[in-house]
Amino acid sequence: MPILRQEPLTGEWVIIATERARRPETFVPQEKEKKASLPARVDSCPFCNKNEHMTPPEVLAYRDDASGPNSPGWSLRIIPNKFPALEQKKNWEKEAFNSADRWGFLDSFPGYGVHEVIIETPDHNRQLADLKDNELALLFRSFKERLKDLAGDEHLKYVQIFRNHLREAGASIEHPHCQLLALPFIPPLLATEYRRCREYYDERGECLLCALVEEEEKTGERIVLENDSFIAFIPFAASLPFATWIVPREHFSSLEVSGNGWEEQLAPVLKGFLQKVALRLGDPPYNLYLHLAPLRSKPLPYYHWHMEIIPKLTIVAGLEMATGTFINVSKPEEAARFLREQKTNERNYNENEQKEKGGKKHVNGTRARFGN
Amino acid sequence: MPILRQEPLTGEWVIIATERARRPETFVPQEKEKKASLPARVDSCPFCNKNEHMTPPEVLAYRDDASGPNSPGWSLRIIPNKFPALEQKKNWEKEAFNSADRWGFLDSFPGYGVHEVIIETPDHNRQLADLKDNELALLFRSFKERLKDLAGDEHLKYVQIFRNHLREAGASIEHPHCQLLALPFIPPLLATEYRRCREYYDERGECLLCALVEEEEKTGERIVLENDSFIAFIPFAASLPFATWIVPREHFSSLEVSGNGWEEQLAPVLKGFLQKVALRLGDPPYNLYLHLAPLRSKPLPYYHWHMEIIPKLTIVAGLEMATGTFINVSKPEEAARFLREQKTNERNYNENEQKEKGGKKHVNGTRARFGN
Repeated sequence: MPILRQEPLTGEWVIIATERARRPETFVPQEKEKKASLPARVDSCPFCNKNEHMTPPEVLAYRDDASGPNSPGWSLRIIPNKFPALEQKKNWEKEAFNSADRWGFLDSFPGYGVHEVIIETPDHNRQLADLKDNELALLFRSFKERLKDLAGDEHLKYVQIFRNHLREAGASIEHPHCQLLALPFIPPLLATEYRRCREYYDERGECLLCALVEEEEKTGERIVLENDSFIAFIPFAASLPFATWIVPREHFSSLEVSGNGWEEQLAPVLKGFLQKVALRLGDPPYNLYLHLAPLRSKPLPYYHWHMEIIPKLTIVAGLEMATGTFINVSKPEEAARFLREQKTNERNYNENEQKEKGGKKHVNGTRARFGN
Repeated sequence: MPILRQEPLTGEWVIIATERARRPETFVPQEKEKKASLPARVDSCPFCNKNEHMTPPEVLAYRDDASGPNSPGWSLRIIPNKFPALEQKKNWEKEAFNSADRWGFLDSFPGYGVHEVIIETPDHNRQLADLKDNELALLFRSFKERLKDLAGDEHLKYVQIFRNHLREAGASIEHPHCQLLALPFIPPLLATEYRRCREYYDERGECLLCALVEEEEKTGERIVLENDSFIAFIPFAASLPFATWIVPREHFSSLEVSGNGWEEQLAPVLKGFLQKVALRLGDPPYNLYLHLAPLRSKPLPYYHWHMEIIPKLTIVAGLEMATGTFINVSKPEEAARFLREQKTNERNYNENEQKEKGGKKHVNGTRARFGN
């Protein structure tokens, strides 16, 4: 009989299919059409090295001391999106609205906000899973820097950092990049998580995600990989096949309020996970995003930041759009085992894998029961 | 500057893009790759005429008086899904759960429910937009009959009727069909609509959707087509390009509590809309679904049933998955005009179009302020 599972963070019930369940290996594409390998640099690509003049001026870059802004010599570069979904206009509050947009009892508001592109590497052909650990750590550090800077604008309420891998997942530019959208309101999925985590904390005096990590450690059957600081697992009520969370063991609610050092620890876990997915599932498109506390909030004892990665292996269809209820045709425990078994070759990652092979180990992360 | 618009039924804010907005004609596929026309019957298709033995026994069929169950001679046939997402098992409450599914503080529940397939026509090659008005009316009547029957099972709380058009929208079987999934809980998107509509009614003493239809009539700029009983419009805060609602002018909360006659009135509006979409946007994939009151509820003064149709023209990407906030790259007013201008050729529909051309007309539908 099929099973309904409830996701504790959102409260939503997911149908874990049995009659229409698919074995993990059925998600591996049959036709192994060899993807053409990309060149290291593309003359017309605005995100490539030496094409810095093709983008708006950078807002942050990590570069050689000798190099000047908006010139070659950078390893990571953050720029305003040339076609922003939201705009940080001056005098936006006075922006005259078309009367059609102050219409009847329907409500509208100026699209105030910030939309930036985080160019992860000057190389056109190096995906996230190809970066070195120290490059990935720099990427995470850039997220933190941008959050701290954007916190200065009190009209911004939440910053969504996300990544679309490949065109089928929504990437319109081939060159590897993340995006950042700072919104003037708390978006609905985050509002739900905050509310549920707060309720749990008020009732039990502990962080829901801290408790969840502890539970996942007990059986281990949904864990894909882990190290001393981060754990990657497929949630009990994952709504889509191979959807995975990467959660810090140490409780902190957002990146601005985090200490240092986690960036180097997250790097091998994310890279290891992405390599497993690429090797085992044929480099599928995916969406990756962070869930953080609201911008400028002080350390919250009830909310625990994390990363979610959703490989795009199935089609979200009418039922899901109509109801918000998902049918997952892949059992989380089977999907996790399938990825866990996949070995990776990269040197940096192997070091961590050795630890993993050593079986259950002592957990160094701290756990917040009474605050951050 | 971009605009944020709030959808009154769900409370969600949508970003209506300006910098990255696309004109309606850019959604028309460039390569007019001629789709191969389908045969009227396929030997191996379980939904085709004369293949009735290939499906589980029918639960409802409209057929010639002379024909017996599960034999040819039908015009519409409803069967249990052979690979159901939920199952109406006897003794399901006693179903022993695998201990892994009664795990920690995570909650699970047997996947009790009903999953049926509504085969709209015995012909493999006739899409919804090709059916005659009386055939479409019969389809809607079958929805009503199934709802009345399923209402007898008190464990079922909500029935989702939906349709996936083409493989890219999630259709796994080519033969035209709808699906019905009866759930043992109220799904989240419906729960939100009920709550918001009830709040609006409690505050203002009128149905939100009745008021919305009246507002849409005032400007008419988002209306795609309409007749005396139904209005098809692109909502003010549509989250995806060309997403359209078809709303009855007469207030009723679900199909079980509706009178007769609306089926014949809905047929030309749905057909006209689907023909406009197919002709104007190159027969795109789409998802179609109904939003109804909970099963067995008495007539509700605050909830108003309707149909939503979402052509699949863009990719739902990382931002939307992370936040639940959508960027719509198509302005609803422009998209509505684009479809409104499209003429259809079908005789049945043209009769209604004549009325439409006649300009604003008297609205015969009733409006519930104090109940149903």
